[in-house]
Amino acid sequence: MSSRPSPVSRRRLLAGGAVAGLGAVAAAGATVVTGAADVLPVQAAVPDTGTATVPFYGTRQAGVAQDPPAQAAFVALTLAAGTDKRAVARMMRLLTDDAARLTRGEPALGDTDATLAVLPARLTVTFGFGPGLYAVAGQRSPVADLPAFAIDRLEKRWSGGDLLLQICADDPLTVTHTQRMLIKDARPFAAVRWVQQGFRRSPGVQSPEHTQRNVLGQLDGTANPRGPGIDPAVWNPDGSTQLVVRRIRAEIEKWDLLSVTDKENAVGRRMATGAPLSGTDEHDDPDFTALDDAGLPKIPDFSHVTRAHVTDPAMKILRRPYNYDGVPNALGHPDAGLIFAAFQRDIARQFVPIQQRLADKDLLNEWITPIGSAVFAVPPGCSEGGWIGEQVLA
Amino acid sequence: MSSRPSPVSRRRLLAGGAVAGLGAVAAAGATVVTGAADVLPVQAAVPDTGTATVPFYGTRQAGVAQDPPAQAAFVALTLAAGTDKRAVARMMRLLTDDAARLTRGEPALGDTDATLAVLPARLTVTFGFGPGLYAVAGQRSPVADLPAFAIDRLEKRWSGGDLLLQICADDPLTVTHTQRMLIKDARPFAAVRWVQQGFRRSPGVQSPEHTQRNVLGQLDGTANPRGPGIDPAVWNPDGSTQLVVRRIRAEIEKWDLLSVTDKENAVGRRMATGAPLSGTDEHDDPDFTALDDAGLPKIPDFSHVTRAHVTDPAMKILRRPYNYDGVPNALGHPDAGLIFAAFQRDIARQFVPIQQRLADKDLLNEWITPIGSAVFAVPPGCSEGGWIGEQVLA
Ligand code: HEM
Ligand code: HEM
Repeated sequence: MSSRPSPVSRRRLLAGGAVAGLGAVAAAGATVVTGAADVLPVQAAVPDTGTATVPFYGTRQAGVAQDPPAQAAFVALTLAAGTDKRAVARMMRLLTDDAARLTRGEPALGDTDATLAVLPARLTVTFGFGPGLYAVAGQRSPVADLPAFAIDRLEKRWSGGDLLLQICADDPLTVTHTQRMLIKDARPFAAVRWVQQGFRRSPGVQSPEHTQRNVLGQLDGTANPRGPGIDPAVWNPDGSTQLVVRRIRAEIEKWDLLSVTDKENAVGRRMATGAPLSGTDEHDDPDFTALDDAGLPKIPDFSHVTRAHVTDPAMKILRRPYNYDGVPNALGHPDAGLIFAAFQRDIARQFVPIQQRLADKDLLNEWITPIGSAVFAVPPGCSEGGWIGEQVLA
Repeated sequence: MSSRPSPVSRRRLLAGGAVAGLGAVAAAGATVVTGAADVLPVQAAVPDTGTATVPFYGTRQAGVAQDPPAQAAFVALTLAAGTDKRAVARMMRLLTDDAARLTRGEPALGDTDATLAVLPARLTVTFGFGPGLYAVAGQRSPVADLPAFAIDRLEKRWSGGDLLLQICADDPLTVTHTQRMLIKDARPFAAVRWVQQGFRRSPGVQSPEHTQRNVLGQLDGTANPRGPGIDPAVWNPDGSTQLVVRRIRAEIEKWDLLSVTDKENAVGRRMATGAPLSGTDEHDDPDFTALDDAGLPKIPDFSHVTRAHVTDPAMKILRRPYNYDGVPNALGHPDAGLIFAAFQRDIARQFVPIQQRLADKDLLNEWITPIGSAVFAVPPGCSEGGWIGEQVLA
């Protein structure tokens, strides 16, 4: 190619949507592959939300340790009767290739709408394997369905699944297109079991280092492991991890009737600042032994954070929740809550005890109801030429 | 107030979510009122997506001529039996006040979650009145239900409505909170008839001057009136306009089977560039008389743009569509399409003839199906102290 476009014009080309034909998409591919770093120096102050990429290949899958992008679709598939281990392997080769290309901002092979592939916006595709997939593969599953909890009101339409696609990006059109392509390529092998679409703040609305509020108005994520703290909680030595996806409805109308003080007591943290009731700043360590003037615990014993708190860094979980907001009913009552996604090395040892303590006693229970539940083993990442799941399916 | 926070710290305060209590929100209010311009000089290169505001008060309602923000909820309400003209007026006073505050980034009076009100992200609330509201007010309605079109497969659950709230913002949590507050305050007077949630590209993914693609991958909006061209098409002298909301399902799986050439012939424009088939650049004027080497029209006579094209600037419509993407069925077929919202001075004289021509003959019809339809008069804006609808209801 004799006249290589300058970074500026390539960036315009990509971001503008006025792509000069598929040749141009292919030509621009090399830029996209290397990610946003390539194009950012042009205008360093403005992060290029549209063309930013998260590397797909690596020993660990993407979409776990990265800051969660604004939009997500969780797609659970059920393997079709007759899909055997070799067929699942074929499907995973295909889906891995799709994910590798799409996350670079390139169309998938056989992409039926290449124009929608060029703005990855930090797209990640994370694959999770449910117990049913291991059964088909003739292997022992590293994950088992959660025990029943007294608070559960689980609906089948939000529960279970043999294969999970967690699709996250800072742009909803990118998520839509990725979902469409992956489902299309999975179709010969699997049916759609459920899809849950969720959101967080749009890019640029808050700086990434600030904790976001959820649909209940709470600062949600404060005590999450971060940076190097993620490693001991989340990653197994082989690069695998495990994922729980719970759909938790919020009784928002009832919650909204509470005073700020009641809301704060239920959580154990201040609504405005996120500070623990024993402290003043969001990131103050909660002191569960601190007493108020009346001699009562400053943080109620049955507050959500008291019950959920874990000190051992290797026993924490990494919460990566998205809000959902469906269509309200005729009376105007919202259908909203959290798609509570949490990663940890071992669901049985980390997630289950926390969820059990919360199910036994948690002031917040009056305003939240689990209505869906699914567990997935998240196999290690792969390098170029490899595919996700080869350890299980090859 | 002795120590006024500097613009920087106020901005941090707002954007950070770590709002130091409602006092701080109120203190920051003055900044928010005057809009993003006040805070932008601090860091001029980065538009402050979260705190940016669109003025609510004015002779014309907001949410029409402004570039559409990334997220929208269209909420249609049905007046409750027994809600008379005076009650509707009370409701509109209340909702106007809510909208004025929320669009400034202030909590509504009686906001049950003030912390979610501080990042307006270009929030607009646009009110539309359906024929039923005029009936209650004992007035002749400026809008009438559309005639039936042969292509229509209308479902009641997406059609009609006495009052429309068009809620748009660059952030989904802001839309959710605004929807929740407005519905709550409308509840004594009206039931929710339908809610349609839609999206466009996230803020920063593309520069605003670039036409966006829709879920079908088409550049959608090219021939829209813009700038001063909006005035003759959209605004009546009194500041009113009219709105059509059609839910149009896209048969995406069938569309995806087409070759690029077939897609282009259906629309009359190139998929990659958006250029008319008679030209080379997106904004070239289409030449409907141009012939190709074989003597055939370069732009097919039954292409979407040939049929939809209007030359008289006063007879154009302003399209402001949002994509929707619901949950695919078990076979993985998407439930996607457009929430086709269009503004014009007069639906009967501007929208209906275009829709009639499209219904009679439009190659695109094979891949799009109207499944919902509603019409609304959009009353003039109001100034501080006034309320939307006073001309009709006072
Ligand atoms: C709709 C459901 C839920 C809501 C609204 C919610 C909300 C919150 C909030 C506001 C906090 C305090 C701020 C923070 O550290 O993020 C928190 C902390 C936490 N939550 Fe939840 N939560 C929900 C469900 C769950 C579930 C299902 C689990 C696990 C089974 C869980 C585990 C935790 C943990 C481990 C912490 C940190 C506690 C600490 O060490 O301080 N939460 N949650
Ligand atoms: C899902 C449904 C629809 C899709 C996917 C669609 C798509 C498009 C596309 C791709 C263009 C060309 C680019 C542009 O100027 O924006 C266009 C133009 C246009 N469409 Fe549609 N459209 C749809 C429905 C409608 C409806 C219902 C109407 C009005 C009744 C309409 C009226 C127009 C007009 C007036 C133009 C500009 C024509 C010109 O002057 O060049 N469209 N549409």
